[in-house]
Amino acid sequence: MPHRHSHEAPWLRQLRQGARDASRAWDLLVSLNDDVGPRFTGTPGEAAGVAWALAAAGRAGLANVRTEPAECTRWERGSARAEILEPTCQSIVVAALGGSVPTPAGGLEAELVVVPSLDALQELGRAGVEGRIVYIHHLMPRLRDGTGYNHGGYLRAHATSHAARLGAVGCLVRSIATSATRAPHVGMLFYESDAPQIPAAAVCVPDGDLLARLAASGRRVRLRLELGCRSLPSGTGHNVLAEVPGTDLAHEIVLFGAHLDTWDLGRGALDDGAGCVLALETARLVAELPVRPRRTVRIALFANEELGSGGGHAYAAAHKDEAGQHFVALEADQGDGKPWALRMPEGQAQSAAARHLHTALGPLGIALDPGGARGGVDIQPLRGLGVPFFDLRQDATRYFDFHHSANDVLENVSREDLDHALAGFAVAVAVLAHMPESLRG
Amino acid sequence: MPHRHSHEAPWLRQLRQGARDASRAWDLLVSLNDDVGPRFTGTPGEAAGVAWALAAAGRAGLANVRTEPAECTRWERGSARAEILEPTCQSIVVAALGGSVPTPAGGLEAELVVVPSLDALQELGRAGVEGRIVYIHHLMPRLRDGTGYNHGGYLRAHATSHAARLGAVGCLVRSIATSATRAPHVGMLFYESDAPQIPAAAVCVPDGDLLARLAASGRRVRLRLELGCRSLPSGTGHNVLAEVPGTDLAHEIVLFGAHLDTWDLGRGALDDGAGCVLALETARLVAELPVRPRRTVRIALFANEELGSGGGHAYAAAHKDEAGQHFVALEADQGDGKPWALRMPEGQAQSAAARHLHTALGPLGIALDPGGARGGVDIQPLRGLGVPFFDLRQDATRYFDFHHSANDVLENVSREDLDHALAGFAVAVAVLAHMPESLRG
Repeated sequence: MPHRHSHEAPWLRQLRQGARDASRAWDLLVSLNDDVGPRFTGTPGEAAGVAWALAAAGRAGLANVRTEPAECTRWERGSARAEILEPTCQSIVVAALGGSVPTPAGGLEAELVVVPSLDALQELGRAGVEGRIVYIHHLMPRLRDGTGYNHGGYLRAHATSHAARLGAVGCLVRSIATSATRAPHVGMLFYESDAPQIPAAAVCVPDGDLLARLAASGRRVRLRLELGCRSLPSGTGHNVLAEVPGTDLAHEIVLFGAHLDTWDLGRGALDDGAGCVLALETARLVAELPVRPRRTVRIALFANEELGSGGGHAYAAAHKDEAGQHFVALEADQGDGKPWALRMPEGQAQSAAARHLHTALGPLGIALDPGGARGGVDIQPLRGLGVPFFDLRQDATRYFDFHHSANDVLENVSREDLDHALAGFAVAVAVLAHMPESLRG
Repeated sequence: MPHRHSHEAPWLRQLRQGARDASRAWDLLVSLNDDVGPRFTGTPGEAAGVAWALAAAGRAGLANVRTEPAECTRWERGSARAEILEPTCQSIVVAALGGSVPTPAGGLEAELVVVPSLDALQELGRAGVEGRIVYIHHLMPRLRDGTGYNHGGYLRAHATSHAARLGAVGCLVRSIATSATRAPHVGMLFYESDAPQIPAAAVCVPDGDLLARLAASGRRVRLRLELGCRSLPSGTGHNVLAEVPGTDLAHEIVLFGAHLDTWDLGRGALDDGAGCVLALETARLVAELPVRPRRTVRIALFANEELGSGGGHAYAAAHKDEAGQHFVALEADQGDGKPWALRMPEGQAQSAAARHLHTALGPLGIALDPGGARGGVDIQPLRGLGVPFFDLRQDATRYFDFHHSANDVLENVSREDLDHALAGFAVAVAVLAHMPESLRG
């Protein structure tokens, strides 16, 4: 009976309510958005973000506030221009995908071929693709659970190599996004080792739809594309760590991660400023409870998530010997979305621990998802080290309207949702830090 | 009893319904958006728009399809960059206001002063403004009747000269817009003759709000602004005219205007592509009625509305001797908004003509506004020539989310609303072309 909690500890009830009544999450996010802004790897904003996080963790009264170095991939966007040359003459708004090579000097002119999927691309074969620019016209569905991003993100990351293997000279992908604004949604591209590296860009949704209509009209479509992006030598970034020391189980760690870096076009208010302030505020609220946590709560604000996960890999490498002491790891990287389900480590949905967590989280409208927790990008490298994951799934209905675009700014964050999310994460982390049950099946 | 129309002519009922069932408005707008796109004065898109309109009027079976030359102001946008230098370092998204002078070579760096109104600016006086960049933080209200644009548009046009008279070196205006996207909403600036000409730009809504929060924090805010815009010599554009010839009152003209030119950032789907297709489709539907109109219906798709109204002035000058034959003039320049009220020439709200029009339009949910019709920008020059105006007021609730911004594209047009608007304009124009009553008080 997950919704009965009359015998729960008074501090838990206090935490559930206090996270919404006494939250500083919004003020923290305003400060991160306004005083720092974009925190793209390799830019002054990245360093400003680290300084901001150290100061915020200090003000929250956390212990062992520190940085750890991380080798980080770097890349710079440069300019981007694209014009339709036939059957009309007009510009379209594009932005290079992260990691893309530039176009040749002076840009690239080629016929466009539009396909809705990788299967359709494959069917065209080399004869239909060679020498052309491929445009992937995939429409991302708007879903609460955000799973439209799985296939969409795969296309964004891999379609370019599929096109290149068939001889394409460039690749465009409709923004993996749910809103029809002229702001492209960017993201990483991965060049597969057996394919030539060709330039690739995201097209904003309305302009992608324009390309698709022009192609569907049966007329030849020709484009000019000019991308001035380039890869830079990798550099050193920093994860920011801070703790609420445990008591009798202090050697066990509840790791709560988020990423401090952002894409360059917006201010990273949702991705992942929201996660950062959820982590900072969760730790502060847990530290201020009348009972100290049994386990150590550690927050980690990772570097370089958007551009290669250097921060997540550095953490796993640096804490490899400590992996067995990680009681659990969770990550907040879905913006301000209200949590709607918890997900236990694989195979534990029926466990006493699951009942315990669901009892504590149920009053916030959080259901028990029978699937296994997947963690976030930053904590993925811990999976191989045997660290159990716990998920709070957040409502992603609006998230992909803004994610990875210029519109990822404070004005598109809901204060109420953010505080609701804080209640979920604070309760989950507090229960994980106190619970008698084990999470290692 | 405006909603009884059981005795109305069968063709009127047919028109009211047919405008929604057999409309080609959407297809026309898709073509204008896709095959032409932006139609900014002085660009190849402007000429492509004229060619498109001539072809569309011909396909619609209209008579006397022709162009008339118009002397048009020209200006080019160039590049725009703005960065906050203190108390944080981050970019903001701006776009030069139309007609702005450029910043000095290398840009402009100055302290920012934020004011909510011209009164507040005046109160600061020269001591508070001299040498600074002024930012006008005016929040446009979202209103069905769009009247938030009156004061907002005035600020955008005139605040720069107010600031310049107090010694400001630049002026920024929060986008006169109702949506929080990173797309600035531009528009014309008018330099008053007694003020120095200083560079001016629109700031997108979230970034304007950021500037206001930084200033409200009490910290000094410094900006760097670089605008590469410049005025160009004026050139010749073209109004496109077409007609449905009348019968017994053929010498009387019902003039239905819209403007063919657009701002440069979007595709002008709403402003004023929608108006253009409403005019073209209205004329086609009237021409295809089983009864020919008594008066001549003339549509005019004007040049240069956004950048100085060269088209409207040229029409008035060219047709001055014919002004007395203009039975009425109306204009569609509020996008796809559903008409919600009609407005008669000043002092005629109680007339038989008003009752006649209201009876015909009432079934479309259109009320009688007791105020006097104001016409649109393009037909304003006819006011001094004594031409009576008629207005169909369109619902502007969503219009200023997109107007004058990169997001003025087909994807933000509602096909249903557009066809509803067409029903209103087609019925109004048909009744005006047939009615026995006079509109000249």
